[in-house]
Amino acid sequence: MRYDYFCHDDRLLPAESHQRGIGRELYSEIRNLPIISPHGHTDPRWFSENKNFQGLAETFIIPDHYLLRMLYSQGLELADFGVGKKGEKLQYDDRKVWRHFAKNYFLFRGTPTALWMNAVFHEVFGLDKLLTEKNADEYYDVISKALSSKDFRPYQLLKRFNIEAIATTDHAMDDLAEHKALMGQTPKVIPTFRPDRLTNPEHPEHSKEMQKLLESGKDITNFNNFLLVLRARREYFREHGATSCDHGHPDAFTCELSATEAEKLYQKIIKKDFNPEDAKIFRGYMLLKMAEMSLEDGMVMQIHTGVHRNHNPWLYENYGADMGADIPTTSEFVQNLKPLLDRFGNEKNLSLILFTLDESTYSRELAPIAGHYPAVKLGPPWWFHDSPEGMRRFREQSIETAGFYNQVGFIDDTRALFSIPARHDVARRMDASILAKWVAEHRLSLSEAKDLMKQITYEIPKRSFKL
Amino acid sequence: MRYDYFCHDDRLLPAESHQRGIGRELYSEIRNLPIISPHGHTDPRWFSENKNFQGLAETFIIPDHYLLRMLYSQGLELADFGVGKKGEKLQYDDRKVWRHFAKNYFLFRGTPTALWMNAVFHEVFGLDKLLTEKNADEYYDVISKALSSKDFRPYQLLKRFNIEAIATTDHAMDDLAEHKALMGQTPKVIPTFRPDRLTNPEHPEHSKEMQKLLESGKDITNFNNFLLVLRARREYFREHGATSCDHGHPDAFTCELSATEAEKLYQKIIKKDFNPEDAKIFRGYMLLKMAEMSLEDGMVMQIHTGVHRNHNPWLYENYGADMGADIPTTSEFVQNLKPLLDRFGNEKNLSLILFTLDESTYSRELAPIAGHYPAVKLGPPWWFHDSPEGMRRFREQSIETAGFYNQVGFIDDTRALFSIPARHDVARRMDASILAKWVAEHRLSLSEAKDLMKQITYEIPKRSFKL
Amino acid sequence: MRYDYFCHDDRLLPAESHQRGIGRELYSEIRNLPIISPHGHTDPRWFSENKNFQGLAETFIIPDHYLLRMLYSQGLELADFGVGKKGEKLQYDDRKVWRHFAKNYFLFRGTPTALWMNAVFHEVFGLDKLLTEKNADEYYDVISKALSSKDFRPYQLLKRFNIEAIATTDHAMDDLAEHKALMGQTPKVIPTFRPDRLTNPEHPEHSKEMQKLLESGKDITNFNNFLLVLRARREYFREHGATSCDHGHPDAFTCELSATEAEKLYQKIIKKDFNPEDAKIFRGYMLLKMAEMSLEDGMVMQIHTGVHRNHNPWLYENYGADMGADIPTTSEFVQNLKPLLDRFGNEKNLSLILFTLDESTYSRELAPIAGHYPAVKLGPPWWFHDSPEGMRRFREQSIETAGFYNQVGFIDDTRALFSIPARHDVARRMDASILAKWVAEHRLSLSEAKDLMKQITYEIPKRSFKL
Repeated sequence: MRYDYFCHDDRLLPAESHQRGIGRELYSEIRNLPIISPHGHTDPRWFSENKNFQGLAETFIIPDHYLLRMLYSQGLELADFGVGKKGEKLQYDDRKVWRHFAKNYFLFRGTPTALWMNAVFHEVFGLDKLLTEKNADEYYDVISKALSSKDFRPYQLLKRFNIEAIATTDHAMDDLAEHKALMGQTPKVIPTFRPDRLTNPEHPEHSKEMQKLLESGKDITNFNNFLLVLRARREYFREHGATSCDHGHPDAFTCELSATEAEKLYQKIIKKDFNPEDAKIFRGYMLLKMAEMSLEDGMVMQIHTGVHRNHNPWLYENYGADMGADIPTTSEFVQNLKPLLDRFGNEKNLSLILFTLDESTYSRELAPIAGHYPAVKLGPPWWFHDSPEGMRRFREQSIETAGFYNQVGFIDDTRALFSIPARHDVARRMDASILAKWVAEHRLSLSEAKDLMKQITYEIPKRSFKL
Repeated sequence: MRYDYFCHDDRLLPAESHQRGIGRELYSEIRNLPIISPHGHTDPRWFSENKNFQGLAETFIIPDHYLLRMLYSQGLELADFGVGKKGEKLQYDDRKVWRHFAKNYFLFRGTPTALWMNAVFHEVFGLDKLLTEKNADEYYDVISKALSSKDFRPYQLLKRFNIEAIATTDHAMDDLAEHKALMGQTPKVIPTFRPDRLTNPEHPEHSKEMQKLLESGKDITNFNNFLLVLRARREYFREHGATSCDHGHPDAFTCELSATEAEKLYQKIIKKDFNPEDAKIFRGYMLLKMAEMSLEDGMVMQIHTGVHRNHNPWLYENYGADMGADIPTTSEFVQNLKPLLDRFGNEKNLSLILFTLDESTYSRELAPIAGHYPAVKLGPPWWFHDSPEGMRRFREQSIETAGFYNQVGFIDDTRALFSIPARHDVARRMDASILAKWVAEHRLSLSEAKDLMKQITYEIPKRSFKL
Repeated sequence: MRYDYFCHDDRLLPAESHQRGIGRELYSEIRNLPIISPHGHTDPRWFSENKNFQGLAETFIIPDHYLLRMLYSQGLELADFGVGKKGEKLQYDDRKVWRHFAKNYFLFRGTPTALWMNAVFHEVFGLDKLLTEKNADEYYDVISKALSSKDFRPYQLLKRFNIEAIATTDHAMDDLAEHKALMGQTPKVIPTFRPDRLTNPEHPEHSKEMQKLLESGKDITNFNNFLLVLRARREYFREHGATSCDHGHPDAFTCELSATEAEKLYQKIIKKDFNPEDAKIFRGYMLLKMAEMSLEDGMVMQIHTGVHRNHNPWLYENYGADMGADIPTTSEFVQNLKPLLDRFGNEKNLSLILFTLDESTYSRELAPIAGHYPAVKLGPPWWFHDSPEGMRRFREQSIETAGFYNQVGFIDDTRALFSIPARHDVARRMDASILAKWVAEHRLSLSEAKDLMKQITYEIPKRSFKL
């Protein structure tokens, strides 16, 4: 146990000594529980091929839009971090990139990125000083060496990280070859069904994905057949271990259509003769049909809405998507979800998990909805709000109305494999910190809090995602 | 004084010892002050008939939508808690319902419901262990016995609970027979004038209430006469002790109309030949007329807006209203209230008390409005936000702009008679906790804080509601 | 060092002793650093004429809309505080006004106004007891005497207050005679270019200001010439020391126009033949043109939006603007700013500083925008939110996403000269308090926090505003 600042063993626990004691006790109850990672964006090929990661830039910096976003915001050049323009394979000196990163690492002070990276450096690579320009080379050597060792192959890392199950996110037409190759192994690597490219006519990949569907020989000339194909794809995913779906829509809009209206709209969509309103209605109706299928086949339904993707057109054109230029928007659930909830909100056997980037909806809309409808659960604080203060706000603004049992526990939602244990650890520490305060204020007993810690860390996520 | 967890004597006071000391001192100043309950939903018949409550389900569970909401959200059957469908008189075993409730009581961990119920069990019934499946029968026996005693008749409870005055909420056409029977007694039981059924053409009871008006022989063929009738009803309420009105509208929309426009619109309304826009304008104009009457007759005006009532149509059809399916919506006051404030905002002798379920309006709209207009005061955190964290957010987001003196103190707003002292006690503790922090940070002196505690607990509510 | 309540030396630092120790250490690092005041509303004539302030009402009460707002909200008469109606020169007894103010000073309990005033009384005038009705005369005598001394002339106060540079806010057509007279002196008094009267056709002073432009002999018959004149005015401001512009718009709307569209719209504007939509488009396009000019000439661009000015028409008509009747509104940046960001968001050499009164935009919109676009920085909590809790919310809701380096430090934004050091001091204490907590929770090291304190107190504001 270490007591200096860098990755202090008590980090994030309450500062005040009485609460810290309680916090430690709560945290120690669940610190070593296995990780359930029911939603994220790791690449299944990493685990099926199980090759070592190559290069620090490629492993830690280039794919991490949290990092790139902050560096870019300060006027730094993406090329200096090894990031090439779209279609360009940039030549760069990996060590030089690392030094440049180290030099600018102070920009992350106070952000969750620093908490995660510090924990990766310390817990995974054994480093014990804060990264600076001065120790950049030492860091580089230690990490490079570890990365090339047998123990650091991706599937070995899952075990090392005590990950019991991890779900990737996969498009409806993916063949899931990697998941097939991994089936039956422990830790579990399972897919998640994400049909946005087919259900959202404005998705940049919509045409391509519909084309794939046609080329696979399916008859999708009418809406009913299209639904049958989607049903079949869901079944295929379930056969490969999937237990949940994920729907990333611009907003939570849902609607009902008659069979005739649906068919008519579908014909417009496949003929590409639709306007934005048509697209919105189609998306909204498809979300309702997806809920209907989830009720039939038991797949958990995640809904992520409220982000303006690729807000920066110059950056998108030159560097593509997922570069940190996605900006949250105002969200509305009370009217938007009503058609779906009118049909399925009272279904105990449906599980709709709602995520938001608009924190004003926690107490106003989401907690009251989850605290009433049997079908609805709250997802944890998402993306920008996956942070100590974000977690505190989420808990304080939702627990009192929705309770602990209408939430689904922590989700890392990351493509940064190395940071998974660090991210779960931040959530575990923050939960211990929040509950310690409530125990110290006699709002919960210590034994209730201990039980809750186990529930929210392990039991609830496992149950909520049927893992 | 008890120091274990269950209803700890220091509950909700700050965890840190120096602040706790200050918190205790502040709380002890006002702990035993009489309760002013200026707005709520208890049944006046309880007090005029003064019969003992019967059965635990009927007393604690069936009428409490806070409880039902949470139990229902977890997929539990309403029938198992003694709740019958609309029009159905369910037969149930009261003790069995209680056991089922006890078994699921853990679901309320971290919610204000648990704080209130625990306090009721401990303070009113002398129980001193947390309710569990195991002690359900012991609880049942102790509570049943007490409920049937003479001391536990409703009016005796008002005295036992140190309630100085309590206002019920009554519809404009109510005859107030119960209030008449109780007049002159101490504690005071007074009515509140709630004209929504007459002023909101979209209210489910609008037609029925207008019919009552007709049958009472009043001429309401034109708008002026309709206003005269409303004036007379207000006078009738005042004669029966009422000091305030309550207006529950979907939003805070208000507007001006010319006499001709108003008459024309009124004719549409009574002929039921109106669209939603007409209804909105009528409601908005009636709110303005109600303010005009309040200025004339001195009745305090409460405005509760921003909730989508009966969001779940299946539940509404089968179980009716007030089953926990009301969901807050985004609220707007700056434009909506402007017509009313343009006319009456500068009136010192008018008192408009605003409530919101959209916490984002506290610092953005409500505190600046209350911190400027002489006529406007802020109501306390309402409904879902009547909770420790909700109170903290309200205080932190409104005091710095509106000060303590543009607020009206705590309102329990409840139909759960037994929980009234517990609810006021939570507010008193939280105020002590918040002010203790400010004293410890030297933002207020201890003597200022002590004075404020008395003001916000007793003096301000009494004065604000003219009690 | 004083340890009783009134202006306690540790005020606003954490209550808990371990954090307070850290807080003291952090605060002591920057307590005496010079004040950078890059945006405010002091009158440059004060400094160029350098005459003593006259009378307590005129110095402290009459010009301060924070004070008037609260007093007015409690039904007090403005005349009793020496405030006359528009055009009226009220005769009043200065001492009597002061006594009346003292009597009502308790209304400010818990507000930042009380923190600022107490600090002014103590730090500037040496008073050491809270202002009450009883000591009003003693206060009056001490302050009156000081005000009339040579050391208390305005320019001397700048030195006394350790103000290194202060920017006033000046309209585009101002001749800046006062700034010219002060050029080359230390402390620096510089102007800020505020073109709203010319760029917002709905500004009450628009016609008058356009008339001034015409009278100055400029050809503004077409849009290009109008832009040339604005460019020239900007240059004039820069020659007189200005480093930044300020744009106060009702919302953050921006848009692109073709040259033809712009010319056509401009012709409507100068002919006063425009509707509200035209005005909005013109404003939005002008904001974009201002950004273009800022990129050319290097002037920092501040954008203040989201307030309904003069919400109370009776008060506006009788007392004019800036009487505390400005109410914040819902704000939106993601769509509104997009046209501007599409053009200039990626420019490292542009600095757009965004302010909001809608706190829900901190974590949802502003921090993600500032945490991505090189051109964007976050302004500190503004106006109603320039308060201890407002600062805490701002830091907690923005740092984790935008980091410390996409913010610009504290801005006092005040016309109350005496309160400037007190306002900066509140910000410094709150930053020390917030960072102390983070250090105590091991989220930052003490040395990182010390460095950050210097950055956010002095280095970042100085750099951000090019001072």
